[in-house]
Amino acid sequence: MTEFDSLMQFQRETEALAQVAGRLGWDQETMMPRGAAHQRGEESAAMETMLHGRRTDPRLTDWLAGATAPGPAGARMLDLIRRDFDRSAAVPVRLAAELARVTSVAQGVWAEARAKDDVAHFLPCLSDVIRLTREKGLALAAAGFGKGDAYDALLDDYEPGATAAGIAAIFDRMRPRLVALRAAVLGAERQPAALSGQFPRDAQLTLARTMAGAFGYDWTRGRLDLAVHPFSSGSGNDVRITTRVVEAEPLNCLYSTIHEVGHATYEQAVDADYLFTPIGRGASMGVHESQSRIYENQLGRSRAFTGWIFDQMKDAFGMAGAKDAEAFHAAVNRVTPGYIRTESDEVQYNLHIMMRFDLECRLISGDLTPGELEGAWNDRFKADFGVAVDRPAHGMLQDVHWSVGLFGYFPTYALGNVYAGCLHQAIRAELPDLDESLSRGDASPATGWLREHLQHFGALRDPLRTVESACGFEVSEEPLLDYLEAKFLPLYGL
Amino acid sequence: MTEFDSLMQFQRETEALAQVAGRLGWDQETMMPRGAAHQRGEESAAMETMLHGRRTDPRLTDWLAGATAPGPAGARMLDLIRRDFDRSAAVPVRLAAELARVTSVAQGVWAEARAKDDVAHFLPCLSDVIRLTREKGLALAAAGFGKGDAYDALLDDYEPGATAAGIAAIFDRMRPRLVALRAAVLGAERQPAALSGQFPRDAQLTLARTMAGAFGYDWTRGRLDLAVHPFSSGSGNDVRITTRVVEAEPLNCLYSTIHEVGHATYEQAVDADYLFTPIGRGASMGVHESQSRIYENQLGRSRAFTGWIFDQMKDAFGMAGAKDAEAFHAAVNRVTPGYIRTESDEVQYNLHIMMRFDLECRLISGDLTPGELEGAWNDRFKADFGVAVDRPAHGMLQDVHWSVGLFGYFPTYALGNVYAGCLHQAIRAELPDLDESLSRGDASPATGWLREHLQHFGALRDPLRTVESACGFEVSEEPLLDYLEAKFLPLYGL
Repeated sequence: MTEFDSLMQFQRETEALAQVAGRLGWDQETMMPRGAAHQRGEESAAMETMLHGRRTDPRLTDWLAGATAPGPAGARMLDLIRRDFDRSAAVPVRLAAELARVTSVAQGVWAEARAKDDVAHFLPCLSDVIRLTREKGLALAAAGFGKGDAYDALLDDYEPGATAAGIAAIFDRMRPRLVALRAAVLGAERQPAALSGQFPRDAQLTLARTMAGAFGYDWTRGRLDLAVHPFSSGSGNDVRITTRVVEAEPLNCLYSTIHEVGHATYEQAVDADYLFTPIGRGASMGVHESQSRIYENQLGRSRAFTGWIFDQMKDAFGMAGAKDAEAFHAAVNRVTPGYIRTESDEVQYNLHIMMRFDLECRLISGDLTPGELEGAWNDRFKADFGVAVDRPAHGMLQDVHWSVGLFGYFPTYALGNVYAGCLHQAIRAELPDLDESLSRGDASPATGWLREHLQHFGALRDPLRTVESACGFEVSEEPLLDYLEAKFLPLYGL
Repeated sequence: MTEFDSLMQFQRETEALAQVAGRLGWDQETMMPRGAAHQRGEESAAMETMLHGRRTDPRLTDWLAGATAPGPAGARMLDLIRRDFDRSAAVPVRLAAELARVTSVAQGVWAEARAKDDVAHFLPCLSDVIRLTREKGLALAAAGFGKGDAYDALLDDYEPGATAAGIAAIFDRMRPRLVALRAAVLGAERQPAALSGQFPRDAQLTLARTMAGAFGYDWTRGRLDLAVHPFSSGSGNDVRITTRVVEAEPLNCLYSTIHEVGHATYEQAVDADYLFTPIGRGASMGVHESQSRIYENQLGRSRAFTGWIFDQMKDAFGMAGAKDAEAFHAAVNRVTPGYIRTESDEVQYNLHIMMRFDLECRLISGDLTPGELEGAWNDRFKADFGVAVDRPAHGMLQDVHWSVGLFGYFPTYALGNVYAGCLHQAIRAELPDLDESLSRGDASPATGWLREHLQHFGALRDPLRTVESACGFEVSEEPLLDYLEAKFLPLYGL
């Protein structure tokens, strides 16, 4: 066997074990009995230690030094393994295991705290997570990641090549137009009504399954379950999604399902030859998010597709909660001051992200302590959104991310929106008749285009090149902002 | 750190990783999407290879040589780790991985074959599993396990210390009295009626949960799901059970649930200090089965407890399917010629085991080929049970065991019945008023006794000593046979 073959065989097992660890995470949020939390912490830590041991296995150094890639895909695999090796080697094994153990427990504590609106119950855990995550960021920075900056070094794990400064620059360009659009829309005379009615849980889940099918989710290689915070997990032939149900708010369940289907079909679509290799998954969190967001928003919230959903709603519930398809489309795209990021409309969503980005940069730098977070959150929310946070579950306890140590992750959501804007522009240019299919509940021309031009390639190319190769032009925030203004101003009679 | 401490820390991680592998098995039979089977095969093989690597880690030799146990529990842990090390080292890593991969796939193929009554679909897989399992048995035998016999070496994994010859001797003593009892009962003039009616699925599952609660199952540390073949999995604070539902046969669901609760509460009851150590689980498959069988049969099918179930049935379904509690008790204990081991009555159950034991000894020795199995099964079944097998799903395809490589496992079911007979005699001697509690649906005096005298100790003692310490007398098949005759002869008016 050549060094390259030895390396790939070892890597294949590591990737398979990482899939198992991922499934353990899925289990924890969907199936695990409550009393198992601490035991699970130890099991997760053992998996993490074992995986860390493999990612820093001394044999990797020799294999990487001696390996010759048999082609561009092989070269990309070598680059990614080397990068992963360097990142893993930079984090002490003790720290990696402690972080795994602490975040596993913190996630359960967060869920309890959120249910009880009890910030104090969560703070000790959050402090531990931040302390350990900062330690990890500093260790990575010391090894040269993020050009020596702890936050950039963390961010680099989710969006290779991105920096806080670059993101801040994009955000600075986006903010004025978003703020202006938000003010115009919220101040408009015409204000669409929300859906009204009760939408039984089981019918919501049945309809969610119909939506998943409309976007090409392969049920033979996935499943749908309930979780506190919807997510997608797994690669290849076992990619699972979760959703949540609020009986008065069916759009919550439907659109979070479509969102996760965007993530999941991406993983299902990656070239089967890449399974259990470093390119056998999405290119980055931002690119992943571009898929979930274009499915959810540009396609799923379009006038054409919502017309079809309107009919499905009547079939499922005996009514759609709106007087006609036009009113339904307006309700789906309704902009109101709201607390919850995941339920936010397209206009305000990125403002939520900007706020989290600024707060988490300060938490990691130490400029903001965990004890000061609630106050800082609530002050900033009032300033940005004009409303006082009424309870912690609507404020700093709303998202799971920080409890599991995901710092540097939030900005990838906004990057995903930017990428989605570019991809949507490219798709509309190539598929002028797309609305005709969407109006029949058939998203396959768009999802097929995405599969062929982007999803199929997995992580063969770096994030930016992945998007730009598909679009055929350079990534910029302009298409997203143009799309938002073109959609929302007329919708509000402006 | 002493050698003992180093060994125990390493072992602790290995046990945690083994728990993860066990949960992966649970997922495969309850949650996994169908299309993930082959991918899962590779994931399971990676886990197995990794665990095998840990169990044969060269450092274990030094630690085991240098370790001094701090007490009897520590000494027992050392013995078990040494035994596991020697067993693992005897099986080549290539063989262990291949067996994991093949059985992972074979399990799915078995389920399909069973659903379609398609023996030919299953045979190639079964041949592979048998070939690899025999190879494993021979490798173990060559290393001195099972005194050089391949089948005994396999058996030794499930029931340390047991031998095919010893089991054959017990079976020879049991057979005449069981055959006589069976003939008497089936020939009796009084024949109880089966339950009649349809028992909706959801109500069955609700009642199954009530039964699980009556036997002390801790829901905060477990959960109930559906599976083709009911099973229990996990240790400590995450012990899950599964059941199945047939709407015309509610006893199937109820008693398979009680059975699995016997296994599960055993694991839940083991001393918490033993978690993630080699004694932090049941002492053997036979001892495990003694718990599931005494819960299910001696307690669950007693006149006192079935009287309480009768009332629960009326509450759950509006009727119990029998005219009174007496008729219900008779229906629960009805003896009829039937195909399925897991649905078999107490009188005939061990005759099923004797048949599987003889067949699997011949499969492993090579005296019987996989292609000949269906014929041999059907001939033997006709001879032992007087009925021709009507379809493979009622014959050689009925059990999952062989598809996952469990050879040497079936006889532990009969040993479990023998142990249960002994434990039941001891409990009745110590708890003369037990029926009074059982008639109120409260099994806690008996389950409490078992927890205190047996379950709590985990694998601290070898299987036979575990049972005999609890009973206070030597294990023999006499109490079981006495119990069966004392119960079934009067029930059939004999």
